[in-house]
Amino acid sequence: MRLAANLSSRASAVALGVVLSGIVPAGTVSAQTLKSIQAPATPLVLKDRGSFYVGGRSVEQKAGEILLGPDDSVTVDQMYVEYMVPVGKAKIPVVMIHGAGLSGKSYDTTPDGRMGWFEYFVRKSHPTYVVDQVGRARSGFNQAAINNRLSGASTAPTGSVTLTAPGAPAAIGQGAFRFGDRVGVWTNFRFGPSFGEAFPGEQFPVEAVGELSKQAIPDLTSQVPQPNPTLKALSDLAGELEGAVLISHSQSGPFPMDAALINPKGVAAIVALEPGACRASYTDDQIAKLAKIPTLMVFGDNLGAPTGLGAMTWQNRLDGCRTYAARIAAAGGKVDLVSTAERGIRGNSHMLMQDRNSLQIADMILKWIDERVERSS
Amino acid sequence: MRLAANLSSRASAVALGVVLSGIVPAGTVSAQTLKSIQAPATPLVLKDRGSFYVGGRSVEQKAGEILLGPDDSVTVDQMYVEYMVPVGKAKIPVVMIHGAGLSGKSYDTTPDGRMGWFEYFVRKSHPTYVVDQVGRARSGFNQAAINNRLSGASTAPTGSVTLTAPGAPAAIGQGAFRFGDRVGVWTNFRFGPSFGEAFPGEQFPVEAVGELSKQAIPDLTSQVPQPNPTLKALSDLAGELEGAVLISHSQSGPFPMDAALINPKGVAAIVALEPGACRASYTDDQIAKLAKIPTLMVFGDNLGAPTGLGAMTWQNRLDGCRTYAARIAAAGGKVDLVSTAERGIRGNSHMLMQDRNSLQIADMILKWIDERVERSS
Repeated sequence: MRLAANLSSRASAVALGVVLSGIVPAGTVSAQTLKSIQAPATPLVLKDRGSFYVGGRSVEQKAGEILLGPDDSVTVDQMYVEYMVPVGKAKIPVVMIHGAGLSGKSYDTTPDGRMGWFEYFVRKSHPTYVVDQVGRARSGFNQAAINNRLSGASTAPTGSVTLTAPGAPAAIGQGAFRFGDRVGVWTNFRFGPSFGEAFPGEQFPVEAVGELSKQAIPDLTSQVPQPNPTLKALSDLAGELEGAVLISHSQSGPFPMDAALINPKGVAAIVALEPGACRASYTDDQIAKLAKIPTLMVFGDNLGAPTGLGAMTWQNRLDGCRTYAARIAAAGGKVDLVSTAERGIRGNSHMLMQDRNSLQIADMILKWIDERVERSS
Repeated sequence: MRLAANLSSRASAVALGVVLSGIVPAGTVSAQTLKSIQAPATPLVLKDRGSFYVGGRSVEQKAGEILLGPDDSVTVDQMYVEYMVPVGKAKIPVVMIHGAGLSGKSYDTTPDGRMGWFEYFVRKSHPTYVVDQVGRARSGFNQAAINNRLSGASTAPTGSVTLTAPGAPAAIGQGAFRFGDRVGVWTNFRFGPSFGEAFPGEQFPVEAVGELSKQAIPDLTSQVPQPNPTLKALSDLAGELEGAVLISHSQSGPFPMDAALINPKGVAAIVALEPGACRASYTDDQIAKLAKIPTLMVFGDNLGAPTGLGAMTWQNRLDGCRTYAARIAAAGGKVDLVSTAERGIRGNSHMLMQDRNSLQIADMILKWIDERVERSS
């Protein structure tokens, strides 16, 4: 067993440099400096900004699980939300939901220091709300899931987990997981055919892949109750906003649909970026409800490339979403499924919001929102 | 053993309501709505904003610890930083560091929906950088610390932990801990003499204590390497900023001093808010180095009240800081130790940045920065 602590920072940085064979400079993991971040040309003027939590429940905890004090309660399953509201006439609010092993940071400053979608959508007049999923980042997690295991108590996960970990099925669900820097990112996120080699015209800034790996943090989705409390929290947030576009990505792909099925009131539109799954399990009754919500699904390029993680490709996932789109359309819904490559935009990775042409992709989505939501309201 | 999962949300909310006997409405845990957040009277105009990571190292991980893929590397020990830079002539940058069981959220929108210090300091012309400590929130943690324990591997903490958990010393260090809602917060943070009862003139918005409990998330400080990677990251960040005021709170109280001892170059001034400790262990040589950095320490009111967590009071901690201040002064340093109560400001809790008079406390600190740093530069 190779243990993390056995490798010094310097040694692993050198190893990384060798494998990357010049594409990524050695030491990239610590290379970003504040000066590499590009300041925008014009100021950002905000009517309001801040952060808050949605949801949460109070649960008892035993002394060993609490930092300060004896047996007590703690709050778990709350969802962190940060937001910015632009001055002037506002368009419809947008909620951005990140994918597996990541946090809301996905939508902020890109790994190579460019403006993220969080700020860009605000500059395009949309009040924008970025969340951390329950079980991650500033939303925290219920440590009882871990501590009960340590103490030998039974804590079988209370629901199914959609994530897969080839080669390690028995281990998933035991602790806190994050995605790997090499296979988990490079091939599965379609930066290139093999670690260190980029696709021709690749849009992800591969020289900054070390910065993306810093965004990858432990993911306790497998330990949250089922249904995932994030779904109800998203539904509640959209309701409080009195109508919002829910943008999901990867693992959170079906979250806007699932949230709308809890309460469709606030879900004005759905944008799913390379959803990990478009559920085939929705009933016709559920499809009829979802068909009332304008939906856009966006996929990038090189979809047929091997992911390095089993036989499933992103093309397979797109095909699954095409089936979903057909069901929605048959139920009278307005649904668009876009492969950027088919539109002549080449080289987009799984991290569409961080690719070099991320603002071009954003503009495409903003235009769709204008057409499908703004003009029809 | 009382297990979290055995209590439904509804049941525990009711129990909470009874204990609080009317001071906090039952169900407060889920009570905050977006509409309770107060928008500022004037727009916020930013030259720049965003987020980035400082530090981090690449380590090998075994398959069971990785979400996507076989044996691979992950990045750990990176520190998340979010920032805002105001337009116009900027004063010295400020870095804000949170305490135990919390995240950078401490310094943003208060539990009762008022503007936090993050935004207020920016409005007062200071570029402001808010961090998540390594082992917490968007900085993540190294899941090997947990998974190795689950697999039976030896993972004794590599260093001492300054946090204490009366009644549960054996358990600390085994997993992920957060502070309790009742004793851990109410008495130790000096909201009142016992859970549900506020001190006369209490400044913490106790009706929103449920919102504070949402900010409390698992804390893996006990599992990070020693010295804590946050210290080097703070030192590096201050260096990149070419001079910054480091503001610490509670558990992070001595972090600015420790960071300056790694590299004093960027640490222009230190503001420690109710530090959990002012280290008595610094050598005279270290004190001589720290004496070159203007230092302010701020404590609130009701310092002698029992914390509910053993004999140590916040008055004891203030006394320890008085000893530290005397050493700094004897070495020729400029040091100020303020108890707000002694200045006639009554009722401040441990959460000075969230109290009802938080902007009054901020103004006091801003004035000190102007006098000790701005005018002498």
